[in-house]
Amino acid sequence: MMESWSFLDTVESNFRPLVVIELAKGTKEETIEWFTKRIVDKKANGGAQLLIKPLVTENGVENIYLVGASHLRLLLGAETVGLVKECSDNSMRTFTYSSRKTFKHFSDDNHNFLTMAECQYIIKHELENLRAKNEKMIPGYPQAKLYPGKSIVRRLLTSGILVQIFPLHDREELKKLRHSWYGRVKVGYQPLDDIRCYFGETIALYFGFLEYFTFALIPMAVIGIPYYVFAWEDYDKYVMFATFNLLWSTVILEVWKRICSILTYRWGTLLMKRQFEEPRPGFHGVLGINPVTGREEPVYSSIKRQLRIYLVSLPFVCLCLYFSLYVMMIYFDLEQWALDYHKENESNFSSLMLYVPSIIYAVVIEIMNRLYRYAAEFLTSWENHRLESSYQNHLILKVLVFNFLNCFASLFYIAFVLFDMKLLRQSLATLLITSQILNQFAESLLPYWLQKRYNRRMKKRLCSKKTDVDLSLADQVNMEKEMGTYLGTFDDYLELFLQFGYVSLFSCVYPLAAVFAVLNNITEIYSDALKMCRVYKRPFAEPTANIGVWQLAFETMSVISVVTNCILIGMSPQVDALFPDSKMDLVLTVALVEHLLLAIKFIMAFVIPDIPRDIQTKLARLEFESLEALKQQVRAFQMQL
Amino acid sequence: MMESWSFLDTVESNFRPLVVIELAKGTKEETIEWFTKRIVDKKANGGAQLLIKPLVTENGVENIYLVGASHLRLLLGAETVGLVKECSDNSMRTFTYSSRKTFKHFSDDNHNFLTMAECQYIIKHELENLRAKNEKMIPGYPQAKLYPGKSIVRRLLTSGILVQIFPLHDREELKKLRHSWYGRVKVGYQPLDDIRCYFGETIALYFGFLEYFTFALIPMAVIGIPYYVFAWEDYDKYVMFATFNLLWSTVILEVWKRICSILTYRWGTLLMKRQFEEPRPGFHGVLGINPVTGREEPVYSSIKRQLRIYLVSLPFVCLCLYFSLYVMMIYFDLEQWALDYHKENESNFSSLMLYVPSIIYAVVIEIMNRLYRYAAEFLTSWENHRLESSYQNHLILKVLVFNFLNCFASLFYIAFVLFDMKLLRQSLATLLITSQILNQFAESLLPYWLQKRYNRRMKKRLCSKKTDVDLSLADQVNMEKEMGTYLGTFDDYLELFLQFGYVSLFSCVYPLAAVFAVLNNITEIYSDALKMCRVYKRPFAEPTANIGVWQLAFETMSVISVVTNCILIGMSPQVDALFPDSKMDLVLTVALVEHLLLAIKFIMAFVIPDIPRDIQTKLARLEFESLEALKQQVRAFQMQL
Repeated sequence: MMESWSFLDTVESNFRPLVVIELAKGTKEETIEWFTKRIVDKKANGGAQLLIKPLVTENGVENIYLVGASHLRLLLGAETVGLVKECSDNSMRTFTYSSRKTFKHFSDDNHNFLTMAECQYIIKHELENLRAKNEKMIPGYPQAKLYPGKSIVRRLLTSGILVQIFPLHDREELKKLRHSWYGRVKVGYQPLDDIRCYFGETIALYFGFLEYFTFALIPMAVIGIPYYVFAWEDYDKYVMFATFNLLWSTVILEVWKRICSILTYRWGTLLMKRQFEEPRPGFHGVLGINPVTGREEPVYSSIKRQLRIYLVSLPFVCLCLYFSLYVMMIYFDLEQWALDYHKENESNFSSLMLYVPSIIYAVVIEIMNRLYRYAAEFLTSWENHRLESSYQNHLILKVLVFNFLNCFASLFYIAFVLFDMKLLRQSLATLLITSQILNQFAESLLPYWLQKRYNRRMKKRLCSKKTDVDLSLADQVNMEKEMGTYLGTFDDYLELFLQFGYVSLFSCVYPLAAVFAVLNNITEIYSDALKMCRVYKRPFAEPTANIGVWQLAFETMSVISVVTNCILIGMSPQVDALFPDSKMDLVLTVALVEHLLLAIKFIMAFVIPDIPRDIQTKLARLEFESLEALKQQVRAFQMQL
Repeated sequence: MMESWSFLDTVESNFRPLVVIELAKGTKEETIEWFTKRIVDKKANGGAQLLIKPLVTENGVENIYLVGASHLRLLLGAETVGLVKECSDNSMRTFTYSSRKTFKHFSDDNHNFLTMAECQYIIKHELENLRAKNEKMIPGYPQAKLYPGKSIVRRLLTSGILVQIFPLHDREELKKLRHSWYGRVKVGYQPLDDIRCYFGETIALYFGFLEYFTFALIPMAVIGIPYYVFAWEDYDKYVMFATFNLLWSTVILEVWKRICSILTYRWGTLLMKRQFEEPRPGFHGVLGINPVTGREEPVYSSIKRQLRIYLVSLPFVCLCLYFSLYVMMIYFDLEQWALDYHKENESNFSSLMLYVPSIIYAVVIEIMNRLYRYAAEFLTSWENHRLESSYQNHLILKVLVFNFLNCFASLFYIAFVLFDMKLLRQSLATLLITSQILNQFAESLLPYWLQKRYNRRMKKRLCSKKTDVDLSLADQVNMEKEMGTYLGTFDDYLELFLQFGYVSLFSCVYPLAAVFAVLNNITEIYSDALKMCRVYKRPFAEPTANIGVWQLAFETMSVISVVTNCILIGMSPQVDALFPDSKMDLVLTVALVEHLLLAIKFIMAFVIPDIPRDIQTKLARLEFESLEALKQQVRAFQMQL
């Protein structure tokens, strides 16, 4: 049995636990010894040179380990992962240990130079890059094969020996963050920099986008209200509102890119160099030579993957789309039936019944979306993508297409086949509001309530008198390891994407959509914040420079919305009345306006620079400096000759 | 008076002249002495460390100097400019002097490791980067101010002391190249690699694009011929041809990106790092601090530039566009007049008169394009852009918009206002063929003939018995310095762009356009080759990784052509007859098809990867290696601790 403190920990006096490793119950002793030895071993011997300590609870040792690292080790790790920090002259530079003195707030005894989230990210990176040397298998588990260069942690995870790795919460910091974030009712911005320090850039950027998007919707909501209140349906006001919406949605997406680059420049991730991507944990294949690295590792033929994508996944997605359309047709039958029933009976009950099909359909849509999500995840994982990014892109594409059709097909059908604007408005309102309520409930409130009940039971079992902050480290770890895992920002962005669809696709029919979206997003900020702070385990920080494929998704939606809005306006009776003689002229005018709007959109996207001038200058300055440094080297070499 | 050989040239026994510098007649002696001293001075003293030698002709010294460099100096220069060469293991790597042994065909006595064009590019780069130290002015010319860091050559050029710098032709190589390029009548590819070795990447890429584009047009031409011969005007064949054209034009533009990356990978420019861009020669402003470099140099407020662009250039361009439309209306009046005249007289002469307005209009269009070009150059230069790339982009944008309207406005008017398909076909044919003939004549044949006449006179004056190859160096320099200067690939690409417009915009009306384009391009290859080899001075090689803004221009044209072709098909009587009851249905169907085609275009552009898989792997391998090297450094540093 190893001691409670890591064997190599002779220098560091105060071990600060950062990351928790939970091994399966009954993991063999030799495996644990080998694994912990590899973690604490010197870099020179191929170890991670971290500190590790078993967690001792009242029930004895439970195969839970706390991982930390010395201050020096973390600084060197920051250099390895390519962290970008602010210098004393306010410029952002890639951190190197040798130039550490030039960085703002750096001093050898300031252990807060790196934030806790950064330290945890470094430890995660070091653990994942702990690679097999010449072990053929994990000691004690002959079926868990290893080959030189294979990530040990990933093999342990896929063979079920390692249950989970997660970063610890910092209860003090979390309390402060909660207070400034959603503790008091206030009008103002979220503490994005604090969120970034605690949860990392990906999550902070999501909240930044959510906040920005909410503010950006306010003009649309404010202009929309009088349309609803005074029932303005004049031609000119109508067209003005729709045109404003269309141009506005282009502007907000372009401006977001600028704001995003301001944020990520300040956070350093805009400058961070992309690391070489390792195969994702689930990737499998026969051993071969990777043409890029020249290393022996599993390879999987790209042709096989293409076959799986085009012969299985694509037909399956099409089938699902067909099924979704089929369900939609049932909904319309139900709707018709409710209408007939109401006509026959004319009672309060029957008029209530009119809303039932829409609500049922909204619920069914949500259920189908969630079921399809599992199928999409299974299929994408079966496609066996080598890289996590490629997996994510294929998953997002599958899910987006289905969700788009599932949510909007009925609205398109009502608008462009039934031509029933009243029904469209009613369906839109029902779908929007139902899906918002369902989402808020399923995403935050239900897990929060479950977690709270569980925590209460836990605490009662452990020791009924302690408050949150007084909890011992062991209790804290035990409580956090049972919390749910936050699966990334995918669902949150998807929700916003669909909401953007509801707001923009049919904006000229239902101007109130933006109002509901704004109201929802304000509560969404709070419920998401609650979810992050209270419901889920702390997630590892993930550096990112932008919102990735979502930018493209939102831009595509805004292009589609130009088309739908132009058609809707063209179909409105007010516009119709302007062309009493010739329907042809009407259609041609609408088509012309649509093409003009699309052209303006593309020109605007082209003209507005994605990065503000001052940040461009700063980036150019850094590039210039590195070129100059290179030239100096060459010059110095030439002078020697 | 300095000696005939550079003072520092003690090692190098055989001076190979590479670049010619022509100073103005009567340049002061002290200026020449200072300038040549700076050129030969050691790098450590801020010189360029090149070799220079005055050209001695029969008339004595004429202020013409030949510049060369030692072999070692060129190799070091190759490292400075970041040249990428092929290694012994067939991978492409950035050349460094210390790793020189790993490169293919390198040996210390192989003076052909760098091509002559590369050597000349290096010398140009070194000359342009010869910077003032603490000189306040050019010695002897107090009005030609200097400040530390100002490029001396650029100041000499702007103050007229330096007339021109140009690279020398290599008569042996040129003869070989001419022979393999256009010397014999043959069917086959151009010797692109040889062109690249002699003229550099930008020009080779233009010829690569011209060849590719010609091949890509052949299917359209082949399919188009039977439509003309058999006068197929059935609905289904018609629509098939147009649809094929639209999808084909997307495919060829996407595939070009792949071919371009294959070419530029082989040439090393795909991997070449962008150098820091210096201000363009014509840029002026008050002395200030550049925020990027921190150096003192002229700065010009970006707001002033924006004002000039939006308050002067933009209105001027609009005025020109209006004028162009006005001229177009005059053309239609003339056309009407010719038609009336023909109806009244009905003679052979009057039927010939029918073609006169179109031909006059085609000539006027060419003249207007050329006049506008000067105005655009003047305006863009007056806008005072700091960088050459920004100047080029603004110039290209101005010229493209005007040329597009000038060339196609009358066709749009005929097609969509007059609805006269017969006139459209006739105008299209006249415009296309006239502009092609005018272009070939004005661009290559006329200069070639002038040049030839001049050369003959020159030779007669010098010594009537010598042949081309026997000319002395002095005669060669004297002859080449009088040749015209090739102003870049702009006009050549513009010609192709307009041709692509004629072929694709109205392809379903005039299927023969592709045939004429193919025929023109075949002769264009020969006449452009002739122009490069015989008419103009040798241009400096310019590394480039793609055809830049032209890719975007061609793609935009292909999007516009989807719209025009859909409308044309919708207007054709055959399609009209399919919807006898409702014109509405026709218009809606056309709009639907158009949106579908556009969607397919964008999806295709998204799905087809821009870089072929094997080159992606090679690029990833290089990136991986550099990341690994960085990690090794960090690891080595950590082990020391």
